[in-house]
Amino acid sequence: MQIKENNAHNFHINNILKRLEEKELDAMLVANFNNIYYLSGYLSTSFAFLIIKENPIIFVSGMDLENAHNTSSIDIVKYESYDKLIGYLKEEGIMNLAMESDLAASVYEKFKDFNLSFSDAISKERMIKTDDDIEKIVKATDIAHKSLLELDVRSKQEKGALEWECAYELGYLMRKNGASVESFDTIFASGPVSSLPHSTPRQAILETPVLVDYGCKFEGYCSDTTRTFIYTEKQEEISDIVLEAHDKAIDAVKEGVKACEVDKVARDIITEYGYGENFIHSTGHSLGLDIHENPSLSMKDQTVLENNMIVTIEPGIYLEGEFGIRIEDMVLVDKKGKLIGNLPQIL
Amino acid sequence: MQIKENNAHNFHINNILKRLEEKELDAMLVANFNNIYYLSGYLSTSFAFLIIKENPIIFVSGMDLENAHNTSSIDIVKYESYDKLIGYLKEEGIMNLAMESDLAASVYEKFKDFNLSFSDAISKERMIKTDDDIEKIVKATDIAHKSLLELDVRSKQEKGALEWECAYELGYLMRKNGASVESFDTIFASGPVSSLPHSTPRQAILETPVLVDYGCKFEGYCSDTTRTFIYTEKQEEISDIVLEAHDKAIDAVKEGVKACEVDKVARDIITEYGYGENFIHSTGHSLGLDIHENPSLSMKDQTVLENNMIVTIEPGIYLEGEFGIRIEDMVLVDKKGKLIGNLPQIL
Repeated sequence: MQIKENNAHNFHINNILKRLEEKELDAMLVANFNNIYYLSGYLSTSFAFLIIKENPIIFVSGMDLENAHNTSSIDIVKYESYDKLIGYLKEEGIMNLAMESDLAASVYEKFKDFNLSFSDAISKERMIKTDDDIEKIVKATDIAHKSLLELDVRSKQEKGALEWECAYELGYLMRKNGASVESFDTIFASGPVSSLPHSTPRQAILETPVLVDYGCKFEGYCSDTTRTFIYTEKQEEISDIVLEAHDKAIDAVKEGVKACEVDKVARDIITEYGYGENFIHSTGHSLGLDIHENPSLSMKDQTVLENNMIVTIEPGIYLEGEFGIRIEDMVLVDKKGKLIGNLPQIL
Repeated sequence: MQIKENNAHNFHINNILKRLEEKELDAMLVANFNNIYYLSGYLSTSFAFLIIKENPIIFVSGMDLENAHNTSSIDIVKYESYDKLIGYLKEEGIMNLAMESDLAASVYEKFKDFNLSFSDAISKERMIKTDDDIEKIVKATDIAHKSLLELDVRSKQEKGALEWECAYELGYLMRKNGASVESFDTIFASGPVSSLPHSTPRQAILETPVLVDYGCKFEGYCSDTTRTFIYTEKQEEISDIVLEAHDKAIDAVKEGVKACEVDKVARDIITEYGYGENFIHSTGHSLGLDIHENPSLSMKDQTVLENNMIVTIEPGIYLEGEFGIRIEDMVLVDKKGKLIGNLPQIL
């Protein structure tokens, strides 16, 4: 077995082990692909179980063994059955076992012999981005911003392009510019469907406004940006309110502030203008290997923002049957929030 | 509230209710997006909970309400909190509550007040395709097959095209030909990485062989096909064995046969030629709205195949560090298995 030393992996695992020890947990069972990738460099394509303990180990499905051997900094063994996995945990003297909260319930039930508890130890570790994480997210953002400018949405709209064609060409440009893949299905929503926050690109000629919510991955890390191309006075009026909420919320982002306080800044502005009921989602969310990570900038999230978190700020106003406007950027938390990228908010 | 009558939805819900009643279950909590779509026509983009009971209802997140109102054949209400959802279930007199086995463990734990059990009632319902499901899967397959021919992989290889460019152009062609999206990330693996069953398209010029495992969705339903373009005698020798296993396994598909028996047919042939250790996955799987559904054609799956199931047949031989060959088609189960599509296996 070839083991690739990786200091970042060791650093994260040691931090997580400390959190587990504080709660008197012997080990943690990890099945989430991005969590395993974060801690080992191995990205599963079928299923895998990482056991975080003093000497961590990954149980890998037979069809992924070659890839796991080539990429993991953690010892791997071939997964054979739940019985054998459970037997191994018992042999290791593990009794108090931490699990991820998104583990499938039927898998969770198989480990009932152990004293189980959910742990956010990995989620907490992933909240604070390393310099390397930040560099990749900034790079993903640069690629995404450059690609949107190259796409030239206004000229597409003039030429009567279709929503899905534009979404697809944007994906091509991001790959050509160095991204591996979209960080989520691109939203290219024009006219009335822009009032659906998660509209799917249609076989339809671009109407106005044109809302583009999109991002790409660079070495696994996501970007997330929204721009709404506006064409009428009414659209501009709404866009101005959203932009004010966006700018003020970004100003509110800094270490020590609670996530819900940032949400309140954006929500209060939109509410003052009488559109509180039309802002139908949270102000933002963290992101990294996943497009949605903790904390979320929602009314309820009490998480205190810390240095080197990255969050999106994405207020929106949705007028059902008419149109929707959303403007979204990513912000690095520091003494003062730092906007990532320099793509103009109004294009 | 506008309710769209849908006979297929009613038919499926009634079948599922019967299965729940047989097990003395009062209701089923459904969170899986495709399960909710299958039963209501509404495809969630954030989260939702469908309660299957005499009068089914869906709790929908605020940001999806407009879309849910427009598409669901089942009554919808706005989701507010777990407490309110649990309160509703209690008011309805529900005690014995069925859940999906892939529900997140942390959600599962919130319903501990109820007498919980996992149910495969929906999975079983989805196993048997309706005429409408089959029509969509056949259409998705036709689009996918036509698009692969249009791509002309051999000419791409001669011109020195890149793996990701080919994968991307194939995605474009499938959309142009009427698909909504890929049914999974296209695998375009050439040269040594073809021995990784789930290789990711690289920024690399096509070597040989070229393994393409891909599919698209038509009105939600998936296709799944693999072709390996071979160039050398050694590749042809391995391909001949895989093709023999593929053809014989397809001959073995018919109602009344067990899933594992079909796997055995393919596995025995490959083992006889001395490559048993190099066939590192199952022979196939069912598919529909999801790319992997039950049953799987694996060594362990004892499910008896029934009329109107659809399964893939996809044996492969993987020579680590050298190359891999896989050939995959979809088969409709009937008195005799019916191959879907007419794309030649060797291109």
